[in-house]
Amino acid sequence: MSKGLPKRSEDYSLWYNELVKRADLAENSPVRGCMVIKPYGYSIWEKMQAQLDKMFKETGHVNAYFPLFIPKSYLSKEAKHVEGFAKECAVVTHYRLKNSEDGKSVIVDPEAKLEEELIVRPTSETVIWSTYKNWIQSYRDLPLLVNQWANVVRWEMRTRLFLRTTEFLWQEGHTAHATKEEAIAETVQMMNIYAQFAEEHMALPVVKGVKSENERFAGAEDTYCIEAMMQDGKALQAGTSHFLGQNFAKAFDVKFATKEGGLEYVWGTSWGASTRLMGALIMAHSDDNGLVLPPKLAPIQVVIIPIYKTDEESKNISEKANEIITKLRSKGISVKFDDRDTHKPGWKFAEYELKGVPVRIAMGPRDLENNSVEIARRDTLSKEIVNLEGVKIEEYISELLDIIQKAIFEKALNFKHEMTTEVDSWKEFESLLENKGGFLSAHWDGTNETEEKIKELTKATIRCIPIDRKTEAGKCILTGKPSEGRVLFARAY
Amino acid sequence: MSKGLPKRSEDYSLWYNELVKRADLAENSPVRGCMVIKPYGYSIWEKMQAQLDKMFKETGHVNAYFPLFIPKSYLSKEAKHVEGFAKECAVVTHYRLKNSEDGKSVIVDPEAKLEEELIVRPTSETVIWSTYKNWIQSYRDLPLLVNQWANVVRWEMRTRLFLRTTEFLWQEGHTAHATKEEAIAETVQMMNIYAQFAEEHMALPVVKGVKSENERFAGAEDTYCIEAMMQDGKALQAGTSHFLGQNFAKAFDVKFATKEGGLEYVWGTSWGASTRLMGALIMAHSDDNGLVLPPKLAPIQVVIIPIYKTDEESKNISEKANEIITKLRSKGISVKFDDRDTHKPGWKFAEYELKGVPVRIAMGPRDLENNSVEIARRDTLSKEIVNLEGVKIEEYISELLDIIQKAIFEKALNFKHEMTTEVDSWKEFESLLENKGGFLSAHWDGTNETEEKIKELTKATIRCIPIDRKTEAGKCILTGKPSEGRVLFARAY
Repeated sequence: MSKGLPKRSEDYSLWYNELVKRADLAENSPVRGCMVIKPYGYSIWEKMQAQLDKMFKETGHVNAYFPLFIPKSYLSKEAKHVEGFAKECAVVTHYRLKNSEDGKSVIVDPEAKLEEELIVRPTSETVIWSTYKNWIQSYRDLPLLVNQWANVVRWEMRTRLFLRTTEFLWQEGHTAHATKEEAIAETVQMMNIYAQFAEEHMALPVVKGVKSENERFAGAEDTYCIEAMMQDGKALQAGTSHFLGQNFAKAFDVKFATKEGGLEYVWGTSWGASTRLMGALIMAHSDDNGLVLPPKLAPIQVVIIPIYKTDEESKNISEKANEIITKLRSKGISVKFDDRDTHKPGWKFAEYELKGVPVRIAMGPRDLENNSVEIARRDTLSKEIVNLEGVKIEEYISELLDIIQKAIFEKALNFKHEMTTEVDSWKEFESLLENKGGFLSAHWDGTNETEEKIKELTKATIRCIPIDRKTEAGKCILTGKPSEGRVLFARAY
Repeated sequence: MSKGLPKRSEDYSLWYNELVKRADLAENSPVRGCMVIKPYGYSIWEKMQAQLDKMFKETGHVNAYFPLFIPKSYLSKEAKHVEGFAKECAVVTHYRLKNSEDGKSVIVDPEAKLEEELIVRPTSETVIWSTYKNWIQSYRDLPLLVNQWANVVRWEMRTRLFLRTTEFLWQEGHTAHATKEEAIAETVQMMNIYAQFAEEHMALPVVKGVKSENERFAGAEDTYCIEAMMQDGKALQAGTSHFLGQNFAKAFDVKFATKEGGLEYVWGTSWGASTRLMGALIMAHSDDNGLVLPPKLAPIQVVIIPIYKTDEESKNISEKANEIITKLRSKGISVKFDDRDTHKPGWKFAEYELKGVPVRIAMGPRDLENNSVEIARRDTLSKEIVNLEGVKIEEYISELLDIIQKAIFEKALNFKHEMTTEVDSWKEFESLLENKGGFLSAHWDGTNETEEKIKELTKATIRCIPIDRKTEAGKCILTGKPSEGRVLFARAY
């Protein structure tokens, strides 16, 4: 029931937390910082996975699986990488429990100490590149285009369901190439795939860009990303694609024999998207009544709710509903018929609004008489009576789902435009961040120091240097020093 | 290349290890006991997953995700459970690394010690039942039919690729029910689903049965299982389904309000199958030339290899091959056209034999002239020239794939029959185990002591008490004490 869901305008953060729990998406687990992804939430994640996996395979990638554990020494082989991840690693030190002496509890057996501690993977570059060393000898072994669906662990002190959890699910692509150009092209391609997925499936408009040095992945030469805008004016990074240069190849000594007979280090990329996307999906579209799901990712696209008083009415409506269900399913539309007599129609309406089901069809005795149904849209909360005479219901609903998918995207796109402001004075910069939020497009002198100072003063970070920015001479918003173009600042999740 | 693959008859164990590596299925990782599942191996696992997932969903189950980590105290709540798993647990004790004082290496930060150690899940009953406590209040919340695809860790001292690894992938179903009868029916249903999957998709005949108390899952009242026979005469447990009684409900205080207004403990089941199935698939069907894959699980069902000398021949064959490919794909058959000019046809023949591709189509200039192709079966290594005049190649191949699927199953079924022997004397029992192996169907007095004694003497264990065994008075093979029916003994993986 959506009763009592907090309002976004009053407490956006509480609204989010409550929505995630009440819509049966996820909940906190007994293990600090880890979440339980509940069946309804997981079914949305499965749809995301299936689509991304398809897009990866269509571009020539294959899946594999690498170990959960990484020897401590491996993590250390790439200097920046270990610096970036060492502070948040779960460490396995023992491999056995035993009974305590009084027999009342179970303790860690001190004799079962590992010779070398193992890290639970925070990301898998090190273990994968140590494997690639054996897989790559010659240019004929390249490119190597591998993806992995896995869980990873980063020990976070402040966690929020989906957005930042100690354990999360993700995919991580790890590719190896013969040339720098090819590796960069792969990096850009994967950013584009993430953007396409976000826009076409999540109905989430994004900005494509490159990270500043400060925000770069630990061990990368360049990090490409997609950034989305949430309803509270904060940005959310929704996928990253890293050009690794030869850093990991050098750290793990991965060389290949070139066509010309030389021996060179391999060029690498890695790219990932995680259950964080669930957070983005929820925060971008939902409202005070609950979730709003784009039809392409909705586990249930249409719910049919019968309204009846007598058993005969129930029987007749069920017959008609089953006809409609058969037609809708023939078009690949997922339908649920909720004819439970334990709950009233009003309760069900609220429940499926909370769950974000895109289309609701209600049918009562009068609808039967008139050969009509009531069709309601979740995104706009609008409804209409549709006379079925001469109407192919499966075509009608199929088109409506397309319309809804587009409408949710358009709404988010307009919002993103509204929330993107070109700013040229520091005063306005600070004031906008405080009062409106959003993406602030501003000049920056290109130094780490200025970026850090701005973060310190305002909590805003450089989300990205947009791919499509135009060259434009200007002055840094903070220091007044010369700049070659605008970058996007925002407070972010 | 299959060149040099050891022969099964000479060293079955070496043959298996080499086959797994050379067919690009898996390899050992730098982390002791953990494996890397290579892309070709993983693509077979993906097909297994997809089919099992479909069967689970068709029987009303939904997927969810629970944490990787389990607080040590949770594991201890069910006495037999902790006894069964404590000795092989990876234990997380710290959550941070830091630079050593000399700055030359990275060490575990002693200040980042966890208050309570975390266990990397060896199985998830405890963390899931602690969650179910919040999900289940009333009979209306039941049954709860949840599955999880996940990685688990059991610290094994002696490991073998797929068969026994420290980390492995699996699915674990965890269901909760209002009555004992319903929970037992679920347990049996899932055993049947595993059996159906093994027989229809893996082409692997199995025996369905119940485990003896000794072999029961730690914390279960009853363990149902499917057991398969490998080519070396050893049995392999290919899936288990546990009736948990109210054990975990009691350990985690999970009660529900009954329809009648009472308050009762919930009844539970759990069931799992793992990447071990890959080991079973490989060992059951493959031969000295390499893998033999049943068509339903083969990532590539048909490979087309052109045989040509001139560019023009190559062009003409490619044209014809592409026609065939289009037709095969229209029937949902997965085809690979290997027209690489870097390898000779003979090399390719051996390569796809090693990889277990069920059907090979070879086409040379004479085939073009005669409108024919050469079609070879991997399972029988037989080949024939097929004139395509009036033949619908897609129908032909589709039927052939069905024939191959059945033939592989029949062969394994015959082998299983051959390898199942009723034994009534201890001498014969010992001799058969030593000289032939297989399932030995023998009387047993029903005591743990006798079972353990037999294991000690022969390394054979009771694989199961077959579901369909007939009541038959007899005398225990070892002690001569009375028995009510035969059980299946075997040495096992």
